Amino acid sequence: MKFKVSAGLAYDIIAPSTIILNIHALRTAHQTVLEETLFIDPYIKIEELNATNGENRFVRLELPETGHINIKYEALVDTYYEVKDYSAVEETPVGRCDASVLPYLNPSRYCQSDKLSRMANNNFGQINSPFEQVFAITDWIYRNVEYLSGSTDSETSAYDTVTQQAGVCRDFAHLGIALCRALTIPARYFTGYAYQLNPPDFHACFEAYLGGDWVLFDATRLAPLNGLVKIATSRDAADASIASIFGNLYCTNMQVSCEYASQEPFSPLYYTKSIFDGITYL
Amino acid sequence: MKFKVSAGLAYDIIAPSTIILNIHALRTAHQTVLEETLFIDPYIKIEELNATNGENRFVRLELPETGHINIKYEALVDTYYEVKDYSAVEETPVGRCDASVLPYLNPSRYCQSDKLSRMANNNFGQINSPFEQVFAITDWIYRNVEYLSGSTDSETSAYDTVTQQAGVCRDFAHLGIALCRALTIPARYFTGYAYQLNPPDFHACFEAYLGGDWVLFDATRLAPLNGLVKIATSRDAADASIASIFGNLYCTNMQVSCEYASQEPFSPLYYTKSIFDGITYL
Amino acid sequence: MKFKVSAGLAYDIIAPSTIILNIHALRTAHQTVLEETLFIDPYIKIEELNATNGENRFVRLELPETGHINIKYEALVDTYYEVKDYSAVEETPVGRCDASVLPYLNPSRYCQSDKLSRMANNNFGQINSPFEQVFAITDWIYRNVEYLSGSTDSETSAYDTVTQQAGVCRDFAHLGIALCRALTIPARYFTGYAYQLNPPDFHACFEAYLGGDWVLFDATRLAPLNGLVKIATSRDAADASIASIFGNLYCTNMQVSCEYASQEPFSPLYYTKSIFDGITYL
Amino acid sequence: MKFKVSAGLAYDIIAPSTIILNIHALRTAHQTVLEETLFIDPYIKIEELNATNGENRFVRLELPETGHINIKYEALVDTYYEVKDYSAVEETPVGRCDASVLPYLNPSRYCQSDKLSRMANNNFGQINSPFEQVFAITDWIYRNVEYLSGSTDSETSAYDTVTQQAGVCRDFAHLGIALCRALTIPARYFTGYAYQLNPPDFHACFEAYLGGDWVLFDATRLAPLNGLVKIATSRDAADASIASIFGNLYCTNMQVSCEYASQEPFSPLYYTKSIFDGITYL
Repeated sequence: MKFKVSAGLAYDIIAPSTIILNIHALRTAHQTVLEETLFIDPYIKIEELNATNGENRFVRLELPETGHINIKYEALVDTYYEVKDYSAVEETPVGRCDASVLPYLNPSRYCQSDKLSRMANNNFGQINSPFEQVFAITDWIYRNVEYLSGSTDSETSAYDTVTQQAGVCRDFAHLGIALCRALTIPARYFTGYAYQLNPPDFHACFEAYLGGDWVLFDATRLAPLNGLVKIATSRDAADASIASIFGNLYCTNMQVSCEYASQEPFSPLYYTKSIFDGITYL
Repeated sequence: MKFKVSAGLAYDIIAPSTIILNIHALRTAHQTVLEETLFIDPYIKIEELNATNGENRFVRLELPETGHINIKYEALVDTYYEVKDYSAVEETPVGRCDASVLPYLNPSRYCQSDKLSRMANNNFGQINSPFEQVFAITDWIYRNVEYLSGSTDSETSAYDTVTQQAGVCRDFAHLGIALCRALTIPARYFTGYAYQLNPPDFHACFEAYLGGDWVLFDATRLAPLNGLVKIATSRDAADASIASIFGNLYCTNMQVSCEYASQEPFSPLYYTKSIFDGITYL
Repeated sequence: MKFKVSAGLAYDIIAPSTIILNIHALRTAHQTVLEETLFIDPYIKIEELNATNGENRFVRLELPETGHINIKYEALVDTYYEVKDYSAVEETPVGRCDASVLPYLNPSRYCQSDKLSRMANNNFGQINSPFEQVFAITDWIYRNVEYLSGSTDSETSAYDTVTQQAGVCRDFAHLGIALCRALTIPARYFTGYAYQLNPPDFHACFEAYLGGDWVLFDATRLAPLNGLVKIATSRDAADASIASIFGNLYCTNMQVSCEYASQEPFSPLYYTKSIFDGITYL
Repeated sequence: MKFKVSAGLAYDIIAPSTIILNIHALRTAHQTVLEETLFIDPYIKIEELNATNGENRFVRLELPETGHINIKYEALVDTYYEVKDYSAVEETPVGRCDASVLPYLNPSRYCQSDKLSRMANNNFGQINSPFEQVFAITDWIYRNVEYLSGSTDSETSAYDTVTQQAGVCRDFAHLGIALCRALTIPARYFTGYAYQLNPPDFHACFEAYLGGDWVLFDATRLAPLNGLVKIATSRDAADASIASIFGNLYCTNMQVSCEYASQEPFSPLYYTKSIFDGITYL
């Protein structure tokens, strides 16, 4: 399926600064970037950082002068996902996880899975199927955590959200990840463009490692699971900020869009209770 | 009902120190201390501190010399409680709470009710009767928090326990209090001797202010609610340590007992779901 | 010295609510309220709550109807303080503290003195004179914590401020209190009107118990120590909110003023390094 | 320089489990493992996990049966380090950091650099030379944090240690890392065998990225900086546990040793104030 995505960012530069942007659609075996443009005004040479793990496409900008800068990213992306029945998929034993998957079992800055072990086991430990466990986790988050813009900040972590029960997509994802890891299910942060997300914005959700696949979950239920364009995956938001800023500058404007660009009609997919079809972006 | 209670404490005094003990059975209009002895070996003059609020009977010991000290408290106490049906009791509006009750709505060191507001409302906000709310709180704690000696320490607070889900009686009480206050139900810490508590120890539970009464609740379910001898009530454990120590000494032994001393048979009372009989110690 | 103080508060009442106001100048043996008015528009009968401990003058308003309410408090207050040299004053042993002073050694919601023990001793434990210790505490706070409006919220505590190093007067006071208590110096929160505070607002600072006196300290250095009109003292802000709100209403306006009203010239007092004159409001 | 290192671990296996061990001396361009043996009794086939980043040599053991297992690792390792004067080395701008270095600027589970920004800048922001900054950080930690076995646990993080001021080598390293990152100096966790560490144990310290080198720092000062055999580097201890355990087993014994095995005499190196010679293990 094709999506036309764009991100517009404007900054006031108070002092010479460096930005690392994380807004490019990921290029993978199955997510094809058909067209892509990055406008920068005034023009500045950028540097693409090659992530050795293929999980992101960071771009670094050196801003040597004060003033104002406009950045506009546009791309036409062909995404591909598979839907599979995970009802019979059992938990992947740690002994059979690939080495590259193991770090996603560790606690991280915003996902203190080591502190949520009892809570996860008390609430979800009795469920046999791991897909059902992760679905139950997202269901618990959806029912207990209120989506509330401005209720959290960049220091908020899963440990806070489990009790404070308010947050945005990033907080929903962190709590989902932390609870999965606490149950020994590898889980990672997913950030991307999301079709039909309203208001339009970058979106965050998460992937759980089930039966050898990274299966997508979104506790917010704010966008169809098959309308996502992947930007990056990572341990948590600490490694996947849309813009990491070093120096002194302020974002004065941000605009994000994601439009459907295929001919065939788009039929939105969401998970539903007792149907264990999971979506994987390859 | 009569109970014979005792507390034996032994300390190694490394440097001149002060201890404030909080082990005396409270003297109230209805809890009568029939006999009472405090042995101190070697003998040291103690000072009784008169709590202006009548909530405790602190005793202060100045230990000017290093060495060893044995303290033994024994008392025969006649307790009195009332059982009342609280099913029709409505929440006491803040506007009608006595000024002396209002502080028990505020957050305290171990009961950060201000941070538990959403969690409390999400889980217990739909319940109409305040007695049923508090019972549901204790039921949630009983089902979700594991009673596990040594799992917590003197810094553990309700905010931790709601997520870490393990603790001792003090932690169960703090979480109960914090959740009540988050629902605008005044609640206070209760420490005392407990008949049939096994192993014998000081016990902590809590009182919620319902219909003008301080009704007893115990999320641990480890001792009958009608077998308690009150030592103190307070905002939380910060104000009701069994022994507050200033200086340098170590507790080398502690023994607590509570025996039933009435003729009539003791029939243990516990709350049960859907029966809204509450117990108040006057 | 005489001060004319005022506080204007306006609220939008969304649903029937209760407010407990804490804006009245305290009446003590030495702080005399010469004139006092409380305007409420539309008129509503208020209830004065008698604090048994004499530490505040709470006023309760029942707001049974939605709409808008204006509250205006005005008073002419004659304050009295003493200045004394505390250089030779030694630490008050716990054994000689009055029972009413002991609670101010305990940790409280925003002053987790139990967690700051090593930090307090490492930084201030080597100082002999307790006045000098408390002055050094305020000096450390002044030098390390940035006064920054909006940097903290109602959940911020001393444990946060010691590391995050930004806050407002309330945070400065909480950290001062927590560090004093960690050194076994009783300390309490002080809220009041402050002459020459700019911009005008309610102010918070703290009192440490030295040589039998409650000596005033203010780590913000934003207002002269002798220009304060006491509203309340308490364990921390949990017990001394300007307005405790139960229900659903929003503050739409707040204005505070404090003017000097004596004939003799006002000469502002601040503590200075190596002069150990402390101020006590009686 | 050659070192003979060994690690003996014994476990009681309660239920089938998986262990991932992180005890093998790292093989790098300059750290040569001359001899190496891993005894497992009873014998179990192990799996070496190839870290794509070359930062560790994890080994995975499947323990399918209950019982007891003994593991003994022994190696003869030739280490190599360089000493360089860093007094003139300036901070590496983010714009010139290699992509592989950037993750070490992000906050992680135990190193919440995002929360320590003010504290780091207040204490170390005025120092010009980055080597001197990092040395000042380790000096602050050494002077303020007490090395105290058992004072912390696996949940303790840099945010706690900055205030609680007690910990073990892991906590010293986490705080050092967090403060570096807060100053935009990339920093990573280093775990290894340490000659002359007393009592013998695995050791943790950290590396800061200065002038293109990963320079070693150890805030504990418990072992010479030139007597280390690297096991792994990582973001923090979350990724470098000596043994990650999945299942149910208990460590019943652990013994670690590190002996010097070269002919030439060993002359221990420590950093000293005002000499800016830094050590890098290549």
